[in-house]
Amino acid sequence: MPQTQHVEKHFTSSAMVRDIVIGMADGLTVPFALAAGLSGAVDSTRVVITAGLAEIAAGSIAMGLGGYLAARTDAEHYASERAREVRETIEIPEEERREVAELFEGYGLSRALSKQAADDMSKDKRRWIDFMMRFELGLEEPDPRRARTSALTIALSYVAGGLVPLAPYFVFRTMGGALRASIAVTLLALLVFGYIKGRFTVKRPFRSAWQTAVVGGIAAAAAFAIAKLIA
Amino acid sequence: MPQTQHVEKHFTSSAMVRDIVIGMADGLTVPFALAAGLSGAVDSTRVVITAGLAEIAAGSIAMGLGGYLAARTDAEHYASERAREVRETIEIPEEERREVAELFEGYGLSRALSKQAADDMSKDKRRWIDFMMRFELGLEEPDPRRARTSALTIALSYVAGGLVPLAPYFVFRTMGGALRASIAVTLLALLVFGYIKGRFTVKRPFRSAWQTAVVGGIAAAAAFAIAKLIA
Repeated sequence: MPQTQHVEKHFTSSAMVRDIVIGMADGLTVPFALAAGLSGAVDSTRVVITAGLAEIAAGSIAMGLGGYLAARTDAEHYASERAREVRETIEIPEEERREVAELFEGYGLSRALSKQAADDMSKDKRRWIDFMMRFELGLEEPDPRRARTSALTIALSYVAGGLVPLAPYFVFRTMGGALRASIAVTLLALLVFGYIKGRFTVKRPFRSAWQTAVVGGIAAAAAFAIAKLIA
Repeated sequence: MPQTQHVEKHFTSSAMVRDIVIGMADGLTVPFALAAGLSGAVDSTRVVITAGLAEIAAGSIAMGLGGYLAARTDAEHYASERAREVRETIEIPEEERREVAELFEGYGLSRALSKQAADDMSKDKRRWIDFMMRFELGLEEPDPRRARTSALTIALSYVAGGLVPLAPYFVFRTMGGALRASIAVTLLALLVFGYIKGRFTVKRPFRSAWQTAVVGGIAAAAAFAIAKLIA
């Protein structure tokens, strides 16, 4: 399909950036909240570190492997829908042509022009099926190599994000000191991360910065309150 | 746009089902892995419960609130891209018509027919912009009311999923008994959940069942190994 210069200027964040954002958003938030929550309930920074690292291992694997399988499922879903369209162009070609014509009519083209367009398009079967996949079903062909890269990117971003709130517990001896340092470095990291994420998406980086920090803060406060209630 | 009977038979899982799957997949996996990991490292089931509930609070808020903000960001992205298209149909209508014509040409329509189709479509400006949003940019209009429902569904599914692996720690007095019971009920829950999820997506429920259980098992084993190494 021809691409014009102008269309490409519309911003779409790359798949890699999206994966880093997915992994790091949760990685910064959940281990932070867990560590803060446990700080109010247990005596030893060692328990916080153990739980935090166990959480990072569990979360990164669950997100990475889960993302990998989801990407594979998407690819199979696309393949099976495509096979179905291929079958239908053989078994009920008139019906399929009528669907394409109706799609055009729905956008204000005359009946005659819509029929002509659908007929012309159906001469090249590959393009015809491509059109139906993308515009009738709204499905894009997934890149099969993406699944593994995506899984690794998400998992590593989760680990990188998760080590930020945990680092102070390795350094500080007292729970209070570690908790305060963890809150400080993580809120700073959430602000910076939210700012960068905001620049890549809606171009309102400052709002994104404080929103991201607020989500992390609320999650941590809730975890702290719950852990305090039990312990 | 006219919808034909036949198109609707293509299965697309509802947004609600998707949200339940997102929340429950992580809710069953991460608290399970964290509890299993801590079981190998601490003496008291109380610490496991505290950490587990803190994780459920943190994870459900991070996922729910994160999902809410992401949905709002999508809605804003759509609105800003739409405003841009509206502006362009006023400022550079010829360019925009040419883009639509090129899209048609890319799918095998003759130059004359493509131009005619683009000209006809541009007479109704609303439809013209709808067409460009959906078919040039691949953006669907997000439902503004979805954000809140989606956030709540994801968060509650996470809580529901997370309580499954934690329940045995409330019942059993010994760590070994609680861990074994947690593994048993959670693997069973993962198999059932994976089976149902598989029926809703690729129609290969048995493969989905064991894959989901394997992801949970690997995450739990990794968390267990790491916690054991530290403690």
